[in-house]
Amino acid sequence: RESEFFPGIGPVEYKPSAEPSETLVFRHYNAQQEVLGRTMEEWLRFSVCYWHSFRGTGSDPFGGPTIKRPWDDGTDSLDNAKRRLRAAFEFFTKLGIKYWTFHDRDLAPEGKTLAETNANLDEVVELAAELMNKTGVKLLWATCNLFVHPRYMHGAATSCDAHVTMYAAAQVKKGLEVARRLGAENFVFWGGREGYHSLINTDVRAELDHLAAFYKMVIAYKEKIGFKGQLLIEPKAKEPTRHQYDYDAQTVMAFLHQYGLNAHFKLNIEPNHTTLAGHPYEHDVIFSSAYGMLGSIDANTGSPDLGWDTDQFPMDVRSCTMVMKAVLEQDGIAPGGLNFDAKVRRESTDLKDLFIAHAAAMDTFARGLKNAASMISDGVFAKSINARYVSWKSGVGSRIARGEATLEECEKVVMEHGDPRPESGHQEHFEAMLNHYI
Amino acid sequence: RESEFFPGIGPVEYKPSAEPSETLVFRHYNAQQEVLGRTMEEWLRFSVCYWHSFRGTGSDPFGGPTIKRPWDDGTDSLDNAKRRLRAAFEFFTKLGIKYWTFHDRDLAPEGKTLAETNANLDEVVELAAELMNKTGVKLLWATCNLFVHPRYMHGAATSCDAHVTMYAAAQVKKGLEVARRLGAENFVFWGGREGYHSLINTDVRAELDHLAAFYKMVIAYKEKIGFKGQLLIEPKAKEPTRHQYDYDAQTVMAFLHQYGLNAHFKLNIEPNHTTLAGHPYEHDVIFSSAYGMLGSIDANTGSPDLGWDTDQFPMDVRSCTMVMKAVLEQDGIAPGGLNFDAKVRRESTDLKDLFIAHAAAMDTFARGLKNAASMISDGVFAKSINARYVSWKSGVGSRIARGEATLEECEKVVMEHGDPRPESGHQEHFEAMLNHYI
Amino acid sequence: RESEFFPGIGPVEYKPSAEPSETLVFRHYNAQQEVLGRTMEEWLRFSVCYWHSFRGTGSDPFGGPTIKRPWDDGTDSLDNAKRRLRAAFEFFTKLGIKYWTFHDRDLAPEGKTLAETNANLDEVVELAAELMNKTGVKLLWATCNLFVHPRYMHGAATSCDAHVTMYAAAQVKKGLEVARRLGAENFVFWGGREGYHSLINTDVRAELDHLAAFYKMVIAYKEKIGFKGQLLIEPKAKEPTRHQYDYDAQTVMAFLHQYGLNAHFKLNIEPNHTTLAGHPYEHDVIFSSAYGMLGSIDANTGSPDLGWDTDQFPMDVRSCTMVMKAVLEQDGIAPGGLNFDAKVRRESTDLKDLFIAHAAAMDTFARGLKNAASMISDGVFAKSINARYVSWKSGVGSRIARGEATLEECEKVVMEHGDPRPESGHQEHFEAMLNHYI
Amino acid sequence: RESEFFPGIGPVEYKPSAEPSETLVFRHYNAQQEVLGRTMEEWLRFSVCYWHSFRGTGSDPFGGPTIKRPWDDGTDSLDNAKRRLRAAFEFFTKLGIKYWTFHDRDLAPEGKTLAETNANLDEVVELAAELMNKTGVKLLWATCNLFVHPRYMHGAATSCDAHVTMYAAAQVKKGLEVARRLGAENFVFWGGREGYHSLINTDVRAELDHLAAFYKMVIAYKEKIGFKGQLLIEPKAKEPTRHQYDYDAQTVMAFLHQYGLNAHFKLNIEPNHTTLAGHPYEHDVIFSSAYGMLGSIDANTGSPDLGWDTDQFPMDVRSCTMVMKAVLEQDGIAPGGLNFDAKVRRESTDLKDLFIAHAAAMDTFARGLKNAASMISDGVFAKSINARYVSWKSGVGSRIARGEATLEECEKVVMEHGDPRPESGHQEHFEAMLNHYI
Repeated sequence: RESEFFPGIGPVEYKPSAEPSETLVFRHYNAQQEVLGRTMEEWLRFSVCYWHSFRGTGSDPFGGPTIKRPWDDGTDSLDNAKRRLRAAFEFFTKLGIKYWTFHDRDLAPEGKTLAETNANLDEVVELAAELMNKTGVKLLWATCNLFVHPRYMHGAATSCDAHVTMYAAAQVKKGLEVARRLGAENFVFWGGREGYHSLINTDVRAELDHLAAFYKMVIAYKEKIGFKGQLLIEPKAKEPTRHQYDYDAQTVMAFLHQYGLNAHFKLNIEPNHTTLAGHPYEHDVIFSSAYGMLGSIDANTGSPDLGWDTDQFPMDVRSCTMVMKAVLEQDGIAPGGLNFDAKVRRESTDLKDLFIAHAAAMDTFARGLKNAASMISDGVFAKSINARYVSWKSGVGSRIARGEATLEECEKVVMEHGDPRPESGHQEHFEAMLNHYI
Repeated sequence: RESEFFPGIGPVEYKPSAEPSETLVFRHYNAQQEVLGRTMEEWLRFSVCYWHSFRGTGSDPFGGPTIKRPWDDGTDSLDNAKRRLRAAFEFFTKLGIKYWTFHDRDLAPEGKTLAETNANLDEVVELAAELMNKTGVKLLWATCNLFVHPRYMHGAATSCDAHVTMYAAAQVKKGLEVARRLGAENFVFWGGREGYHSLINTDVRAELDHLAAFYKMVIAYKEKIGFKGQLLIEPKAKEPTRHQYDYDAQTVMAFLHQYGLNAHFKLNIEPNHTTLAGHPYEHDVIFSSAYGMLGSIDANTGSPDLGWDTDQFPMDVRSCTMVMKAVLEQDGIAPGGLNFDAKVRRESTDLKDLFIAHAAAMDTFARGLKNAASMISDGVFAKSINARYVSWKSGVGSRIARGEATLEECEKVVMEHGDPRPESGHQEHFEAMLNHYI
Repeated sequence: RESEFFPGIGPVEYKPSAEPSETLVFRHYNAQQEVLGRTMEEWLRFSVCYWHSFRGTGSDPFGGPTIKRPWDDGTDSLDNAKRRLRAAFEFFTKLGIKYWTFHDRDLAPEGKTLAETNANLDEVVELAAELMNKTGVKLLWATCNLFVHPRYMHGAATSCDAHVTMYAAAQVKKGLEVARRLGAENFVFWGGREGYHSLINTDVRAELDHLAAFYKMVIAYKEKIGFKGQLLIEPKAKEPTRHQYDYDAQTVMAFLHQYGLNAHFKLNIEPNHTTLAGHPYEHDVIFSSAYGMLGSIDANTGSPDLGWDTDQFPMDVRSCTMVMKAVLEQDGIAPGGLNFDAKVRRESTDLKDLFIAHAAAMDTFARGLKNAASMISDGVFAKSINARYVSWKSGVGSRIARGEATLEECEKVVMEHGDPRPESGHQEHFEAMLNHYI
Repeated sequence: RESEFFPGIGPVEYKPSAEPSETLVFRHYNAQQEVLGRTMEEWLRFSVCYWHSFRGTGSDPFGGPTIKRPWDDGTDSLDNAKRRLRAAFEFFTKLGIKYWTFHDRDLAPEGKTLAETNANLDEVVELAAELMNKTGVKLLWATCNLFVHPRYMHGAATSCDAHVTMYAAAQVKKGLEVARRLGAENFVFWGGREGYHSLINTDVRAELDHLAAFYKMVIAYKEKIGFKGQLLIEPKAKEPTRHQYDYDAQTVMAFLHQYGLNAHFKLNIEPNHTTLAGHPYEHDVIFSSAYGMLGSIDANTGSPDLGWDTDQFPMDVRSCTMVMKAVLEQDGIAPGGLNFDAKVRRESTDLKDLFIAHAAAMDTFARGLKNAASMISDGVFAKSINARYVSWKSGVGSRIARGEATLEECEKVVMEHGDPRPESGHQEHFEAMLNHYI
């Protein structure tokens, strides 16, 4: 009989009256509680990411591994890979999260050849299928790791070496097959090495052309094998590259339009990446949603004073409220979800830290959901916004909006009616209202 | 007879042997000198901007005006406006620059009504036409100031108040007429107030829709009146807004594609804006050029440690070399140019500082041009780049690039030929070669 | 009888049950409510700043004034100055704030000579004294504006021109006299122009020596006239200079030590400046407090994605909680206070926006105070922190802390007892506990 | 007989006429060439750092090792350690560099106990002594690695666990002994883990007190064993910590003063750290030099658009000119030097890239030296600076500077002589002069 990996921990319970120092509980997240007609679980669609939470070691550019897990013997064996996976499913279940995500290389070790690598992967995937079936945990998305291996140092789809791109293509082919096998609801591309370090040894136009060609091969194969998941691109501004081609939401949308790919992809937005691109936390969520392109969210945060990706657990109620408001306004994030692309600090070395971190982040998003739902039900924000834009709903305003007006017509209005009278934007009033909900 | 505004200064001469402390000369810029088959003047197409150099006062958010010009009596009179314009043309001529640029409101004061404002503008424009005719100085581009007046505090084309947008439309109508009258080679839109301060009181999708509708009215009127200049959008990340809709080159390209406007616009890239968006100095020049969208350049620089637009004169030879390399590679910047959207420091209060700043920047770009031309003639960079990408020119590499390959085909190559062997990118070697030219 | 400047507004009332859209109330700030043995008013010592709230016009580097007040006729007359001051005292009273702050030049216009300027100032100061006496509003601090006038473009105490420094000295002499006349509890120096734009035309050591010499003159005169207020230096990293000599709290402390001035000064910390220096919001508050140097706080915030000082009203509950925790831990901020060095957005043009902004910020700090008080009363943070550092309280740990140990002694312990065992830092647990209080 | 590790490469020769693509040469660095009375070698005192150049593998937070050296068998054996060291000395010699630097743990593997670790270290140190003796290469500085091992995850001298601090103390004791054994001219402390990640679980004052106590033990032991090298602290703003206690030059100087340690330490300035702290490249070099605290320089650079330490080779002639100007003005950097704390890019995988990178950086600094020497010999900068500050050399200006003046005296001057007249700062003129030298 299989041993327990987290003895004495969990399942995490809903206990709104917990003491301040009691953090291994939910104070706000109550999976079956209804909010605006759906359960919290349906709105929030939380997912645990396998790489940080089950492959992370706490190493950083200036330090070695700090996190050692009792089930992990430090080898690259398939046995170790499978034990780790069993531990993960115990974690998912005790935490009460219904989705997970992974990179192909998180699951199983690379072999000497691609064929051997694929065989290793298949073996662990079969165990994953079994555990998913047993626990009911589903695969939010899969992705291919096209950035860790030295072969990808110049990029994968955008490598200067076409042979490398072929390798990436072969790897993605297998990744799509695995995604279909496990019923992945999405498939993500994060181009960690698709970018440049130096403009003087790089042909950016050629590289972007190759990236588009690569995606066209992906679409063709996805359709061929009947994989139904949504394709997602995850923007990031920089790191590890100096400039990543998928800089932010708008840059990815530019790319998709430039190459006629926009019908095939949506975006997976990670707020820590949004802030690294110089935007407010919720910016890319809102902008991609505005164009129907918000597919999923990597729920995490950075420290605004730092210039790199810290992948911290999201703990700020205001930020989570703004994100959930956008999600509610587009009627949910499905088939995407809120994937905790977040890692416990390298100093948080206890097993229970992993639970506490997830539980606290789930609680923060649950508060965000409840806050956003109140804001929407009360209607005070919608009413105030509508009042600000009312002039666009009739007269020449509506004619401009519908594309029927001309500069001459506008001039005529001004000549007749004179100058507009500026009205206050009342930003502090809006901020005070928001604080009421937080 | 008209008095001289810069007595004892200029014309600025080419004097390569000038002493170190002699800065009111050109050491490198020699207008008629041939470089790669054209004169320096033809490649560089320098332009003086009227707002910084003839309307700037040195005031900043923490300080009042420091710069007082002898011809400026501080009033808003038309006489003052005309005297200032005469001074400017003396400056252009003595400096030996063949283009200028302006905002409508730089030229003439606003009146009590739009009609009066337009009449003021017409009066000064007639003088401008006369001075242009007399001196041979041409108009690189005109633009409308849609950001200083309080009416535009919530935006112009993206204001929450449609009446404000109509006012902006009327203003641009007149601006296009003026541009046609003066033979402007381009017309620029910089959306300084088109963006948001707060996402909680803003409907971003509506505002972007209105912006697109506005541009469609512009295109219609431009065609109606037969204005032949190139329309340009100038990206900026932020400031004065928290987020400007035209964040960077790719964001503008996304917008143009989303609304089907890409055939009608090119970009006016300002490197100080590029660095504010988090990119390397030459990034947006290179990326817009890669897609045939580089229309013109606002030649300036910021301080990389500062988070706002300092609009300094470009003095870094390496940066200017990189920009000119991109310009040479797209066979020139015409009908655009290199517009010095740069201001003397507020502590540089002497008239001669204005000359020195422009001359030193022109010299820096002349060095950049000569360096880039040598890099291209010598061919060592092109040869090295071609060698890096050679695998894309034949075999399956070329099939991927042409859109003919499949994931299966790629997998087959890898199964047969195994893993690629990573090759050095030799970045430091490229940097050392670049330093050779600087 | 004097007219009312804010008819129909105020006084602002404590109304915890106000509707979401009702923002001209206090929901949390209840001046006389006791928290940890003092009233809210005693802990919070709020102050209105005169420059933003009564001299601000909404102009920014790209736009003109948007804010017009009914009492302000736009002239530089003494009558206008006095009317403005009366409006301010009505505002202070209706808002229920007991302190104000100003720059000398906020109060009265400059004259043609320093003597005339001083006479103007005296006249308005007498009215201020009268209004303070009548309303009970006190002067938290005064300061001299040594940055707006063109004479200060190269610095005041650090100008390259000693004559300018003499002017600044004369101005500060008068400023100290005014501060004494009005019973200022502190006197602030913010060196907006004390710094450099370019290192190639600046002698930084000479300038810092002059700054120290200047402060020594200030101390001598302060003692001579018997002014008892605390001298404060306010750090800022940059803007308007490229580098301000008082970069952040530690930089100022270095300066004070280098010149033997540390006994005479404390710091006035502005969090928006702290974040511009690259630190977390509460960093400089905590670091200056750690060395007994926290004298007062300029309560405001910036947007973390912007590189300039936005001086927004502080609305983030978590940040205000952290600040108030530091204030409680040093047993209060007196004789300093929480000065709202914050301005309504330039689009917030209504009179009531000014009330709403202050009330909402006061409420946010009141929440911060209550949260911090609970954290301290409950003792869970203190207990957890003490547990982390327990090894320093006894044995060789305490010997090191007391300066009694040697490297040899430490080595001996390690040779005998071996390697330490790393313990988790439980950061997410601490964050979850903090969220419980917010 | 020992094999050659870099067959077919070097020694690097001075060849000013090399072709553009020939980068494995010196075009400017000519060791014995005299500049301002010393040889280039004497001014520049270049040093190779062992960690990047002989322990670096090219791994980054998103990727595995890319750099494999033929002499490195990937084991932690002493044989491997020694072979690596022999390769390094061949490299130093062929490159023509006279100094090296290392961390204790770069040289030899850790053992199971501290005693074993020390024995390993001793064994490799003996080989180092032999190779240094044979080649004449000297040790610029040694340092202890107190940040990679998991035991240091909460800091070393500032750990919450005193046992960890004792371990660090024992390690530094050995480090000082090794430094003495090898005749190190300096000993460096870089507190990579001395800082905080979160203010809510940290007692910053206690940690800084412990850091000072630690340094006092170091000073005592240094004096006891008669180690004569200069102690240096290397500031860095952040990374890996969120805030490092030694944020920048001024912060370290504040710390040294606060604890009375300033006579015992100087600073080791790394420009990539300076820019991460938000300052211009040469800022900390100039500021520490201004207070006689510039001890040594870690010659490298970052990319200004990135928020982390990239440790690139310094290739910018202007920056290196500014640094060398400061070095010349303080009459040299000895006993410090210019240590290349820089790594080849992880894509620069060839052995010759290591040579090219160092040679190109040496050339860049040689250009900087020659430029700075010309600037100083020509005297145009000194003359212009003196003219700007002339008012401080006589009259009341000199009285203020000498601490003899009063506010009253200054006021009297202003009352008599009126307002100062602002003079231009001529920044663009200075920039143009600088460009003349570059």
